Amino acid sequence: MLNLHAPTPTRWLEQVSRNLDELLLDHAHCEKKAAGVAMNLLFAYVERVELVRAMSAIVQEELSHFHLVLDILERRGIRFRKLPASKYAERLHCLIDKQEPMRAVDRLLVAALIEARSCERFGLLRDNLPDPELAAFFGSLFESEARHHSTYVRLARLFAPDDRVNDRLAELARAEARIVAEGEPAPRMHS
Amino acid sequence: MLNLHAPTPTRWLEQVSRNLDELLLDHAHCEKKAAGVAMNLLFAYVERVELVRAMSAIVQEELSHFHLVLDILERRGIRFRKLPASKYAERLHCLIDKQEPMRAVDRLLVAALIEARSCERFGLLRDNLPDPELAAFFGSLFESEARHHSTYVRLARLFAPDDRVNDRLAELARAEARIVAEGEPAPRMHS
Repeated sequence: MLNLHAPTPTRWLEQVSRNLDELLLDHAHCEKKAAGVAMNLLFAYVERVELVRAMSAIVQEELSHFHLVLDILERRGIRFRKLPASKYAERLHCLIDKQEPMRAVDRLLVAALIEARSCERFGLLRDNLPDPELAAFFGSLFESEARHHSTYVRLARLFAPDDRVNDRLAELARAEARIVAEGEPAPRMHS
Repeated sequence: MLNLHAPTPTRWLEQVSRNLDELLLDHAHCEKKAAGVAMNLLFAYVERVELVRAMSAIVQEELSHFHLVLDILERRGIRFRKLPASKYAERLHCLIDKQEPMRAVDRLLVAALIEARSCERFGLLRDNLPDPELAAFFGSLFESEARHHSTYVRLARLFAPDDRVNDRLAELARAEARIVAEGEPAPRMHS
């Protein structure tokens, strides 16, 4: 369903479980960035009303999640602050075609894969974190990330034939799996 | 309350009343841009939690308005499409200080003045348009634009002392009034 080429390596859960405060901070930034990405897509393809409506719904949902993470940070006395991001999203963005219409397809599919990976990892956190508040919180986000994934894949099909979109999705998913397999030293949602 | 230095010249209402389809299209783009401006402010000053929360609320509200305008366009059979913007916002943005913290103050006050002018004009449309659906629609947006104006002015006070903010607001409001007095040939929300 999520079109991921490989599951998250086991070392990730160990890495972030030892650094939950930092994971939460990074998660807040991820929700903010997800809203920003949807807003950029809305601006870039503003004459596609179906895309525009879907993007504004996603912006609103991601900002609501962002608020929920800010609330958790506040309750736990963690000051919301800047944090160096993982290279994951940046590396995926480098794979985006420079030429339309494949640029649109790629931007939407990269967003789809990021949502898919977040969804998979929210499931891991829900099933494995001993902290019941956090486990429930990540579980509550699982379904909307899966829905966003499907929305992005569906919108990509507005810009290219289905088989082209399917091939490109498989190709980008393989690249995404390679990036995830390499990992990163800082504990992040996408490390 | 709205801190505007001069009321809208009477020619504006005549100009836009003759071109309501174009006004509605421009209005849709204005709501979208207002959401974009709030999102940019959220990203730029992300460590100010009060600002971040206020900006995400405004993004969400502007996007809801954007959807409402898209609905009206759809019901009236007007295709949503790109439209050359008025120079109003661009001319105001040119006045923004390049140096922080006054850059933050100026960005927030320019946003405040644009909300104020929109609010004033929504009132004019509510009171003068013969089309009851449109009059009611613009009237329904009046209060939230006034609220956004106050929010932006309040947030500017996070970055500089009150008297500095008040002086700068008066100065920018005088510039805004001059831009409005000059007018523009194309019928727009801010022509």
